Amino acid sequence: MSFHFEIEAIDGKARAGRFFTPHGEVQTPVFMPVGTLGTVKGVPQDTLEELGVQILLNNTYHLYLRPGVEMVRQFGGVQKFMAWDHPILTDSGGFQVFSLSDLRKVTEEGVAFRSHLDGSSHMFTPESAIAAEIGLGADIIMAFDECTEHPAEYGRTRESMERTLRWLQRSKDYFEAHKEEVPWFERKWSVASGQLPVKSNPDPSNRAEAFAQDDTIGWVEPGQTQALFGIVQGGMYPDLRRESAQRTVEIDLPGYAIGGLSVGEPRPMTYEMVDAAMPFLPESKPRYLMGVGTPEEIVHYVAQGVDMMDCVLPTRAARHGLLFTSEGKISIKTARYAKDEGPLDPRCGCKVCGRYSRAYLRHLYASNELLAQVLNTVHNLAYYLDTMRRVRQAIMFGEFATFLSGVRPPHLSVP
Amino acid sequence: MSFHFEIEAIDGKARAGRFFTPHGEVQTPVFMPVGTLGTVKGVPQDTLEELGVQILLNNTYHLYLRPGVEMVRQFGGVQKFMAWDHPILTDSGGFQVFSLSDLRKVTEEGVAFRSHLDGSSHMFTPESAIAAEIGLGADIIMAFDECTEHPAEYGRTRESMERTLRWLQRSKDYFEAHKEEVPWFERKWSVASGQLPVKSNPDPSNRAEAFAQDDTIGWVEPGQTQALFGIVQGGMYPDLRRESAQRTVEIDLPGYAIGGLSVGEPRPMTYEMVDAAMPFLPESKPRYLMGVGTPEEIVHYVAQGVDMMDCVLPTRAARHGLLFTSEGKISIKTARYAKDEGPLDPRCGCKVCGRYSRAYLRHLYASNELLAQVLNTVHNLAYYLDTMRRVRQAIMFGEFATFLSGVRPPHLSVP
Repeated sequence: MSFHFEIEAIDGKARAGRFFTPHGEVQTPVFMPVGTLGTVKGVPQDTLEELGVQILLNNTYHLYLRPGVEMVRQFGGVQKFMAWDHPILTDSGGFQVFSLSDLRKVTEEGVAFRSHLDGSSHMFTPESAIAAEIGLGADIIMAFDECTEHPAEYGRTRESMERTLRWLQRSKDYFEAHKEEVPWFERKWSVASGQLPVKSNPDPSNRAEAFAQDDTIGWVEPGQTQALFGIVQGGMYPDLRRESAQRTVEIDLPGYAIGGLSVGEPRPMTYEMVDAAMPFLPESKPRYLMGVGTPEEIVHYVAQGVDMMDCVLPTRAARHGLLFTSEGKISIKTARYAKDEGPLDPRCGCKVCGRYSRAYLRHLYASNELLAQVLNTVHNLAYYLDTMRRVRQAIMFGEFATFLSGVRPPHLSVP
Repeated sequence: MSFHFEIEAIDGKARAGRFFTPHGEVQTPVFMPVGTLGTVKGVPQDTLEELGVQILLNNTYHLYLRPGVEMVRQFGGVQKFMAWDHPILTDSGGFQVFSLSDLRKVTEEGVAFRSHLDGSSHMFTPESAIAAEIGLGADIIMAFDECTEHPAEYGRTRESMERTLRWLQRSKDYFEAHKEEVPWFERKWSVASGQLPVKSNPDPSNRAEAFAQDDTIGWVEPGQTQALFGIVQGGMYPDLRRESAQRTVEIDLPGYAIGGLSVGEPRPMTYEMVDAAMPFLPESKPRYLMGVGTPEEIVHYVAQGVDMMDCVLPTRAARHGLLFTSEGKISIKTARYAKDEGPLDPRCGCKVCGRYSRAYLRHLYASNELLAQVLNTVHNLAYYLDTMRRVRQAIMFGEFATFLSGVRPPHLSVP
């Protein structure tokens, strides 16, 4: 089986579990760092491994534009391309065409848009988006959805939700018909014939090296395919969230996401929408809340029953000198840290806190040094991942309620 | 003794040796990466250690402007500030005020200049430059010299050389009178009194952490001081180079540098100037050729008797996508690498070549991703350091002539 999910412990609504993908296992609840273009900005892959990153998110929209799906497909998939022999999830590009591209035009067929890079014209349909995701070869891929803008009227939100459901069915139909085209599926042939796969490299002199790399990176048991997740929409209307969840689950997929949140609405409304959908998402499948949140918020989403999250916040904030610590958020550029010989976070075990002072990190940031972005990103990711490890441990020990009570309530306290 | 140098093997004019500093030992010939502002741009210190970097160069001019000498001094020196518990060398700022600052005015007293950052007015004299270098606390510090512009007339070059000699005497006089002010010298007191040193940290709650860090970083045997090196000038005139070398050596210092080269002159002239000075630099002291060169050139300078070199080339070129390999220099942005699954350099053992493909590195660079600068810099440094390790090994085995004959002649073949 290419994908399956096991629950190991339940504590209140929170769950600890694990899922298995063609490129490895992931322990949940899990935070997925964002590696938009096949890289977590500034952080080498071996450092991500040291940090305990289990799964990365890549953006289909960005990889589709650069370096292009065909390039990655010929490489054997995005895991091999970025030398990351671990699970990867791709979004469908739905959110990016809404947030990044110019001159977007939505029809029942799909979304016509212009590249934010060069203005060139493109179109994503459920079929072409899934084709792109199959070509990229992530372990988990997301259905093509319409991210409803906020605020939106009820009627408009329902129409958008209905379209997302129709697009989900088209996404699934295309996926079922083409899932064996994933670049690492064909290795079945290679193994069966006793031959190494023929690589796309046009230069025969490099083939030996490419083959040598095959032994260590991206080797997948033959015959496996990707897992397609559906996305619940429904804007800020609890009844639409509920209906979207019910009808998404009817389409029957290995996992379900909640999308279209953290798009500008007040945080209590986010919690309300998650609560509205959650009872209708089956316990036996992973639940993925897309694009959230702060370190405190992600703990509270776990309390609502969420298993997977991703967010640009830790990495993007790091590049702006905003650092998450056990003592709260720090803006490292502040003059008060100029002579501070202490570590960024005395309770953090990451290699940044173990070695460098706040004064040095402040100096790097104030001097616009590259290393500031590298070290700040490493720390913020460590902080998020350590938070999730402690959350998981608390659930396993049945102590999650106590753990949760120690986390500052984000905007409001959540039951 | 704070500094001494031992020769282990001589092969032709080339020497293999080692020198000892308060922060550790360095095997020569050595290439020193440039860490201008207390950071090798984009590379964490643990990665520098993995690469086998033995000694870094920091720029006094830059650290004097940001974060300021007093800040670093209070920290216990630049090693502690940048969390690099290994040797560091600082230049005197002489070259930077000539190349970077605005509205420079040279008098016998020193150089008045304006900061390239904010236009503020400053003055470096031999005394103030050495005071800055003592405050920064590098293991090896350079005398304040005048880097003669190129081209320069004979009379102007002689005058400049004479001034550098007078400034060297003033540098040495100031250093001898103040060398015990180096920030890590005073630890003698701390140990003698049985007390941990009192730190500058204004927040008492952080002191425990600062002290805890002391156990692992920057601990130096008490009573040691820095080593002051003199700099040979003389422009492009062999007789002035010879005279400068002779008179610099008369001032008696633990090491001697050749400065004012690689400033735009044709490469054969560089070799000629090195040859002119070299016979007059004592065999028992390290010889440091400042600001050079390409991977082929540094091998040839070793053949001329050079023990130490530094250059921004590997790090700066890396940030522009220019990579040094055993097959020659590569511009990674070239479209021909877009689908190249092979490693950057199949004969390189660095962690970049061991993991990533040329296609991925090209994608990172073309997408202006931070990781491009990080990985490119790691590889180029690995290439330089590996070259120096192989050079040293060849000298130790008496096989340096053979090694040298395999290195492409840079611009001309050197005897």
